[in-house]
Amino acid sequence: MTTPDFLPHHDGSPLHVSTQTPALGDLVRVRLRVPVDYPALRAVRTLSNPDHEPAWTEATELGTAEGWTWWEAPIVVRNRRHGYRWLLVHESGRIEWLNQAGLSELETRDADDFALLAHPAPPEWMYDAVMYQVFPDRFARSAAADRHPTPDWAIPATWDEPVDPVMPGRSQQFYGGDLDGIREHLGHLVGLGVNLLYLTPFFPAASNHRYDASSFTSVDPLLGGDEALVRLVEAAHERGIRVIGDLTTNHSGDRHEWFQAALGNPEAPEGEFYYFTDAAHTRYESWLGTPTLPKFNWASPELRRRFIEGPDSVVAQWLKPPFSLDGWRIDVANMTGRLGDVDLNAEVRQLTRQTMIETNPDTILIAEITNDASGDLTGDGWHGAMTYPSFARPLWAWLCEPTGEPYLTGEGQERTEPWFFGQPVGGIPRYDARQFVGAVTRFTAGIPWRVRLGNMQTLDSHDTARFATNAPAEVIPLAVGLSMTLPGMPVLFAGDEFGLVGADGEASRTPMPWGTESQPAAAARLDLYRQLITLRREHPALATGGLRWVHVDQSAVVFVRESAEESILVLASTTDADITLPAAALLGADRAEALFGDAALAGAADGSAGIRATGATFAAWVLPGVDVPEPGDSGDAPS
Amino acid sequence: MTTPDFLPHHDGSPLHVSTQTPALGDLVRVRLRVPVDYPALRAVRTLSNPDHEPAWTEATELGTAEGWTWWEAPIVVRNRRHGYRWLLVHESGRIEWLNQAGLSELETRDADDFALLAHPAPPEWMYDAVMYQVFPDRFARSAAADRHPTPDWAIPATWDEPVDPVMPGRSQQFYGGDLDGIREHLGHLVGLGVNLLYLTPFFPAASNHRYDASSFTSVDPLLGGDEALVRLVEAAHERGIRVIGDLTTNHSGDRHEWFQAALGNPEAPEGEFYYFTDAAHTRYESWLGTPTLPKFNWASPELRRRFIEGPDSVVAQWLKPPFSLDGWRIDVANMTGRLGDVDLNAEVRQLTRQTMIETNPDTILIAEITNDASGDLTGDGWHGAMTYPSFARPLWAWLCEPTGEPYLTGEGQERTEPWFFGQPVGGIPRYDARQFVGAVTRFTAGIPWRVRLGNMQTLDSHDTARFATNAPAEVIPLAVGLSMTLPGMPVLFAGDEFGLVGADGEASRTPMPWGTESQPAAAARLDLYRQLITLRREHPALATGGLRWVHVDQSAVVFVRESAEESILVLASTTDADITLPAAALLGADRAEALFGDAALAGAADGSAGIRATGATFAAWVLPGVDVPEPGDSGDAPS
Repeated sequence: MTTPDFLPHHDGSPLHVSTQTPALGDLVRVRLRVPVDYPALRAVRTLSNPDHEPAWTEATELGTAEGWTWWEAPIVVRNRRHGYRWLLVHESGRIEWLNQAGLSELETRDADDFALLAHPAPPEWMYDAVMYQVFPDRFARSAAADRHPTPDWAIPATWDEPVDPVMPGRSQQFYGGDLDGIREHLGHLVGLGVNLLYLTPFFPAASNHRYDASSFTSVDPLLGGDEALVRLVEAAHERGIRVIGDLTTNHSGDRHEWFQAALGNPEAPEGEFYYFTDAAHTRYESWLGTPTLPKFNWASPELRRRFIEGPDSVVAQWLKPPFSLDGWRIDVANMTGRLGDVDLNAEVRQLTRQTMIETNPDTILIAEITNDASGDLTGDGWHGAMTYPSFARPLWAWLCEPTGEPYLTGEGQERTEPWFFGQPVGGIPRYDARQFVGAVTRFTAGIPWRVRLGNMQTLDSHDTARFATNAPAEVIPLAVGLSMTLPGMPVLFAGDEFGLVGADGEASRTPMPWGTESQPAAAARLDLYRQLITLRREHPALATGGLRWVHVDQSAVVFVRESAEESILVLASTTDADITLPAAALLGADRAEALFGDAALAGAADGSAGIRATGATFAAWVLPGVDVPEPGDSGDAPS
Repeated sequence: MTTPDFLPHHDGSPLHVSTQTPALGDLVRVRLRVPVDYPALRAVRTLSNPDHEPAWTEATELGTAEGWTWWEAPIVVRNRRHGYRWLLVHESGRIEWLNQAGLSELETRDADDFALLAHPAPPEWMYDAVMYQVFPDRFARSAAADRHPTPDWAIPATWDEPVDPVMPGRSQQFYGGDLDGIREHLGHLVGLGVNLLYLTPFFPAASNHRYDASSFTSVDPLLGGDEALVRLVEAAHERGIRVIGDLTTNHSGDRHEWFQAALGNPEAPEGEFYYFTDAAHTRYESWLGTPTLPKFNWASPELRRRFIEGPDSVVAQWLKPPFSLDGWRIDVANMTGRLGDVDLNAEVRQLTRQTMIETNPDTILIAEITNDASGDLTGDGWHGAMTYPSFARPLWAWLCEPTGEPYLTGEGQERTEPWFFGQPVGGIPRYDARQFVGAVTRFTAGIPWRVRLGNMQTLDSHDTARFATNAPAEVIPLAVGLSMTLPGMPVLFAGDEFGLVGADGEASRTPMPWGTESQPAAAARLDLYRQLITLRREHPALATGGLRWVHVDQSAVVFVRESAEESILVLASTTDADITLPAAALLGADRAEALFGDAALAGAADGSAGIRATGATFAAWVLPGVDVPEPGDSGDAPS
């Protein structure tokens, strides 16, 4: 059995790193904890890689406290992303390396190093955010919505009509939700405890999802126009809820004013905004060959100026009054600026963030990178990512029943086999709890701690099936609980709190079932979300505390989020659990206080503990914070 | 026990990839081999990541041959480095991924994908090269050398004087080897069978190593000047030996004509070539703070023009007649163009290669990247790297005795503990054979196959201790044999073939012991090298064949390099070996012919085999080539 519960530990949290926001040239102190009964160490060192050349520093022993010996080493930050790893030299001559992938006797690669970031930091509020995602057409209709004419492209639907997942309904079925409808339901968000509202696009477009914007300079009149957005943001801010929008930097709609100016008109200045492939400017590159979504060419200085660079750009416009958005989620960020031989992605994300900093630095920038995000999450632009392999997919693979049903493609054909998050892998893979931890570790190992905290910890989204569709009811608390307690930004896709289901990213765009709040199933689910969001928001260690796995077996994970002020112990188990943790695995388990769930924790003063639970269980306890010894606390003088 | 001997297999070799040199837009066919008794597969697919968005292709079954079922899938090359991995969907619903790190049940990250490269390819001769590294001051003195005056900086040494590893002797001890001396010993190289001569710098400088060049436009008169280089290259070419030089793109010497023009002279055009940190241009950035090695600032267009860009650049000058060098090794390539907030490395390597292509495409470009090289080895510039963690360091850790002796620093102080390749890790780590394979795999997994073939497979170099210093005599054949038979460019650092030793990178710069060739120890070692170089050069499968590990245990590795024409089976074992390979692990083991070493191979017609050897053994056999079935070879029609 793998027992990663009592090993030397380091992560990017304040317990272990003296500053979260260093500048180039700053000296940062990093700390490693080693169990007191670990084999004796002759030396502890850090290996950094400034300008891609090794640089070593020597750690000194700070002392021991509560079963741990702490070592501290200085690192001067030489690059904006300054990677480092630990070397442990045993008295026996054996050596071990520690990086974000864990301990290794073999040398390790640079990509998995811990990392200090000297890029401008995100606002502090990002770490405390619990996000609520709204797809405006499906959230709520205000009275005003009835007065909007149905657009030419739309297939009107009544609120209780089933979602049509097949083209053309897939894109054109129109429920008519609007921004005032959202505003009128802000009390629902307040009741849940969320504090960040993410709106999928609100620009005028020719589809229900509005990712095919026809303009970036106004709010779709069908949603209530600019004034409705101003009203919504003001009302949200009054309630302590921030609001971010959704920009498509990879492409626009083919009805977009820039594209319309350029199409068939080689003289137009907007011609350089796209990749036209013929002299007449009638053929062009588009998103996965979809002609309604022409791809932007970021080599164009004028496109940069209009869209992402400077105070008059689209990016800036919406962050300023009267709109005062609190940031952006960027659609298809992974493909943005990339086409064949060209890769301008880093320039686009860096320029975008620079403009946001100049306009209002108290904003966040989240990238949609649905697969491996580590290559782009260097801290230079994106604060985090809407990404699935580091949480959602492993979670599904661990907790869901494998699906066996084919479902329809967008064209109405049955697939020959079930997919999984857009992957033709034959349905939901089967992971046990160890594999869940393995996958989470693998897909976060390449991401600096600070950026990991900005990753959206989704169970699902408007692009995926809903988690509850394939999950037994008893694992829902585990899933929601883990999204609230593992490092990252918890996200609630509107409707999940009612227990909605949906077999794919179209079927999941269900109109909100307002009025069913008091039905028993919905009420229980709403209560679950409220409790777990409260847990997250009342305990800052869940936002910025370190992460240490203390027990992982086939069916259960136990971890602790640690800070100097408090530690939160978390159990997620799919079966009966009877877990014994060795001495000093936990600090103060004897002083634990239950926060959530139905499990018994018996802690001893030596830090050992027993956890017992019956059936699928999510549980959390608060424990005392972690003491870092000052130099001199131990009998040994620092070397 | 790990038995990676009978698993689905793919690598970048011609058996498995239809073209090694695709262009953007080309369709490449990739092939996966699956043992016939592997669990039944419902589907085999490739996942690519063009423009960072997933793209899938379906493999069809080609048929079965000699125990393997072959699947083939099309991939259109969309990016210059086009990554892909395999998905295996079992009939049972289980899935597996295969990338360069091996098989995984968990999703895998992009960095370890197989990769097709649409960058310009290296010349074919690179794959057949066996490199011989010469440090000119220590190789041989011609009669003319006696006529060169001793330079002001030098501390003259006679040829049989011990190397002084402590400053100032470390840099200034001067033996006076010259290029005509090398030319006069080309017969030695011919006798060994090497066909590529790598010269460390031949530019005028103020040190014995000449990495502090004072000019890049002439050959050091102490080495015989330009004419001596012309004579050497002509003589080498006549003998079928190519010659590459060594450029420092990270820095020059402080006596360099460009630096001298710039120092203290803010008006000089060369001022922008360096990072001066004061207005008077008297303080500047340098290599690891060494003031004699001022660092280049690659933001300078004029530096680019003079050094790396276009037909009049330094890079081009030496590749043209009369010098006609066959390529460059680039010193400190890892740091080149990198300083704090700046990273121009990719531009420098791409421009350098572009100039070489325009001057003479039949040249190679190898980068010194002593540690993890995967980040820079994308195929866009460097053809390969002089790098240690993917071969040399794991080899030492497996085969050498751990050293226990401290040795001197450059300043003459004793180190408190032994180092290892510049790492303060307490001496040579202990790996078993499995860990050797694990480390080789880890540090090659991020490198495209074609670039891996260009990596210098060094046992040691002028910057490291010599391998024989710490290795028992009986493992020398394993080390040399593995350098010749694993994928990569074999390298012999001059003197190793005489059995020279040296405890660090200074002590290893021993003058060549000419005249000792017939002494028994030297004669045996010379013969070993001759035989193993002959083995490598007579069997193209060792240059470009695939690599498949067929057996790995604690003390032995068995692998096969495979092509359609032949397969070379290799055993390296540190102890007695009695290894049984299952049926179909090998093709034609019953028809094997021994090529090297004292081991017994008993092959059966079903592909099973037994290998027996006594004591430390390196052995190789040639087997028939691998049959790839044409569609229709199997009873099953392709799906």
